[in-house]
Amino acid sequence: MSFLIRKGEKKDMPAVLGLIQELADFEKEPDAVEVTVEDLENNGFGENPLFKTFVAEVEGEIVGMALFYARYSTWKGPSIHLEDLIVSESKRNLKIGKALYSKVIEYGFEKGVKRIEWVVLDWNTPAVEFYKKTGANVLTDWNTVQMDEIAIKNYIESL
Amino acid sequence: MSFLIRKGEKKDMPAVLGLIQELADFEKEPDAVEVTVEDLENNGFGENPLFKTFVAEVEGEIVGMALFYARYSTWKGPSIHLEDLIVSESKRNLKIGKALYSKVIEYGFEKGVKRIEWVVLDWNTPAVEFYKKTGANVLTDWNTVQMDEIAIKNYIESL
Repeated sequence: MSFLIRKGEKKDMPAVLGLIQELADFEKEPDAVEVTVEDLENNGFGENPLFKTFVAEVEGEIVGMALFYARYSTWKGPSIHLEDLIVSESKRNLKIGKALYSKVIEYGFEKGVKRIEWVVLDWNTPAVEFYKKTGANVLTDWNTVQMDEIAIKNYIESL
Repeated sequence: MSFLIRKGEKKDMPAVLGLIQELADFEKEPDAVEVTVEDLENNGFGENPLFKTFVAEVEGEIVGMALFYARYSTWKGPSIHLEDLIVSESKRNLKIGKALYSKVIEYGFEKGVKRIEWVVLDWNTPAVEFYKKTGANVLTDWNTVQMDEIAIKNYIESL
């Protein structure tokens, strides 16, 4: 079965959200997705888009996507963060994931970024091995810190 | 001694780079900083700035800074990443760090972001404790993956 990788457009956002939800279901966090199709359409397009996507199509159906955006390293300069790379479960083993991954790296190469970055769950050994094989470096000594919307509000009120 | 927190401007970038370099020296990576004043001026200002800063001034001298930019969570929506928060070693204990930290969180609150995120070295217990006390959540099961400029080029050539 052949597939096509192309830039994601506004009209693809329902399918993109479908993939985001599919991953959340798979991770047993079905209610974690608060983002709507309208949010993706508003946030990813227009004057100041917060992200870009590539999508993978099989027979006109979107079966995979990579979502990424610019970041900045104070040591190296402009970089790209790959936030999500999702291939629908029924379409694995078609090398679509690798093609989306390569497309994002190609995009970064063309833009001349100094680094491409993402995160991986520490127990996801197949992914870690794949990333290392492609030349990426896995940093195990940095932890992610997150302050969510409620904590932000609580903190501001405590000041 | 009193201090002032304000938005960073183009003219502040030499001092901002000074702080970035001071931190790199402290971390025993003096040669890791490839970014120049011109890079910061070009990347942080103009039509599509890749980051914003707040700076802390004591008697007209910049002694601290926070550098941050927009990110996007596919589950929650718009977020902010705090890339660096640096206070010059000679000016610690003046609560400047806490003031810069609060300023960034305040900024996120005003923008209505869903999350503010950053990373911390896992052995930096005082920082981890401070973050937790302010309501942030430290995720220990995610690892950072980075593909640097050379690895990007090598990967592209291997395709």
